Amino acid sequence: MRRVKVDLGNRSYEILIGENLDQSIEDFFSGSKFSKRSLVIVDSNTRRFFADHDGFECYEIPAGETSKSLKIAEEIYTRAIELKLDRKSPIIALGGGVVGDLSGFIASTYLRGVPFIQIPTTLLAQVDSSVGGKVAVNHRLGKNLIGSFYQPQAVFIDLNYLKTLPDREIRAGFSEIIKYGIIYDSKFFDLLDENSDRLLNLDSELMEKVIARSCEIKAEVVSKDERESDLRRILNFGHTIAHAVEEETHYEKFVHGEAVAIGMIAAARISKDLNYIDQSTADRIEKLIRDFQLPTSTENSCDPDKIYNALFRDKKTIGGKINWVLVNQKIGNVFIDNEVPESVVRSAIESII
Amino acid sequence: MRRVKVDLGNRSYEILIGENLDQSIEDFFSGSKFSKRSLVIVDSNTRRFFADHDGFECYEIPAGETSKSLKIAEEIYTRAIELKLDRKSPIIALGGGVVGDLSGFIASTYLRGVPFIQIPTTLLAQVDSSVGGKVAVNHRLGKNLIGSFYQPQAVFIDLNYLKTLPDREIRAGFSEIIKYGIIYDSKFFDLLDENSDRLLNLDSELMEKVIARSCEIKAEVVSKDERESDLRRILNFGHTIAHAVEEETHYEKFVHGEAVAIGMIAAARISKDLNYIDQSTADRIEKLIRDFQLPTSTENSCDPDKIYNALFRDKKTIGGKINWVLVNQKIGNVFIDNEVPESVVRSAIESII
Repeated sequence: MRRVKVDLGNRSYEILIGENLDQSIEDFFSGSKFSKRSLVIVDSNTRRFFADHDGFECYEIPAGETSKSLKIAEEIYTRAIELKLDRKSPIIALGGGVVGDLSGFIASTYLRGVPFIQIPTTLLAQVDSSVGGKVAVNHRLGKNLIGSFYQPQAVFIDLNYLKTLPDREIRAGFSEIIKYGIIYDSKFFDLLDENSDRLLNLDSELMEKVIARSCEIKAEVVSKDERESDLRRILNFGHTIAHAVEEETHYEKFVHGEAVAIGMIAAARISKDLNYIDQSTADRIEKLIRDFQLPTSTENSCDPDKIYNALFRDKKTIGGKINWVLVNQKIGNVFIDNEVPESVVRSAIESII
Repeated sequence: MRRVKVDLGNRSYEILIGENLDQSIEDFFSGSKFSKRSLVIVDSNTRRFFADHDGFECYEIPAGETSKSLKIAEEIYTRAIELKLDRKSPIIALGGGVVGDLSGFIASTYLRGVPFIQIPTTLLAQVDSSVGGKVAVNHRLGKNLIGSFYQPQAVFIDLNYLKTLPDREIRAGFSEIIKYGIIYDSKFFDLLDENSDRLLNLDSELMEKVIARSCEIKAEVVSKDERESDLRRILNFGHTIAHAVEEETHYEKFVHGEAVAIGMIAAARISKDLNYIDQSTADRIEKLIRDFQLPTSTENSCDPDKIYNALFRDKKTIGGKINWVLVNQKIGNVFIDNEVPESVVRSAIESII
């Protein structure tokens, strides 16, 4: 078992990573000052992981992105009020990113904020959405447009859940893991490069190490810049084009991690075209993405002009300026460039269509 | 013109209090790094105060508590997205408590938080809801059940708005002002005691002083305890029974400040019954409330049992314990007692029916 501390002053918390964390979870609750009644939010996939415990009520939402809505949030507020949950009653997310984001949004707003605990069950949620305090619901005009920054009191990452996931979701999770190597840690990138097969086969020891390091990198970045004013933007590597691809394919053709893989390919090519990195560095990035069996193009499913226009609707585009996260000189080192010429962006988009 | 600083580290801000603040507001915006487009939220009463300015869009909601809903919030999110408001686009509340609470909730959640500016136009909003960062919408099962703590970047309190208010709203505003004297500052209580007539006539110099001191007291309490873990609870003086009275009269018979006046009478009587204060101190509190022409009973509009039961539905009741704010020894000094015997509570309730 490994522990990663997220250092945020009086809102610091720990992430526990390991197999069979039930006892650790029990110890955490019995050592807390929470009210006796809690609400566990699950979806139709993770309902079966919920075991009955005194005082833990279970609320099931339909699996899938459409559950991240104000409408579903309102239903859960109603349930919380009916159960007389008070300001010390925890909300527990047991599921993937959708469950985590929605539960966190509810925890951040119910009675102006109640304790929040994350038990992420997908690889993507374990290495990304469950760390960092971003919570949100969707608006019909765009994803994650309504939300806040709200830190959990603890995150429990149990590797056993990974064995329940389809292969495609495992691969998609690795996309964000690869991202951490590119933006922050070249040795971590090398480790992934040397062990792609063992990792895709979920080797326990390696998975624990890789998930812990991913959380550690995200925690470090978030600790330095909780509210995404500057440094935190590097976590957005590959995401600018990923969001556009997801939007243009109506969130159907690709899961998030796959879109991020395509976006990272494009960002590496922009970095290369602007001579921030050489061809061999761009090739290494592309090779690792291929090794993890992730897509490197939209397979002709998108219109390049539409992708280009969608970039300007991104939440992180401010005053019409896109903050590109680009690789600088070497793997493990990125910076923000908001002056990338249109022609370079368009050529990178063409290359991933 | 007076300035009150709310000291909250990197989220500190200033409250400006005076007459004719238009120039100060303009200076603030031109000195800021906001995006060029802003959204000003008004209601049907305050629409007329909005003057057209480049880049300032106006959104009007119906006046009244029912506008503080997730439904109206969703409509405003939609408008904000359509206007392409970004993370540096301010949301400005121009109105009373309803406009302020709703606008603040939107500012705290739109794109995970955008700048928020308050221009409160009622006395109650000027001395209470615009300071302290509590923002919320209502749920059909209770008021302010969905919200967060979110600080504005500035508050502009223009005394000119007071002249537009009906007398009843002025009196109701004084209820919270009297509260600050009782909980924190006996000299301030004396000042109110000696000047009730001039204050009810809105004497400018005195009003500026009294509003500034009220904001200062609230700011001091909030600075020490932003998220209502302990000290901040003293601001709840009179509110426990007020909320129950408001609920039992369906928010129709009394405006908030009037219900608080009744609640303060009850809290003073509980303090007296438990021998925390003597009869003359309780009498002084009651006299000041009468001097400001505020109600001292529900005028037989409530059932005492229902009031008693409603106390346990209050958001601040945790694990069935009511945190009573009671006067201790003298005016200007309160403390929290969560062990008040049922009989004492019931007798205080009987006395204000």
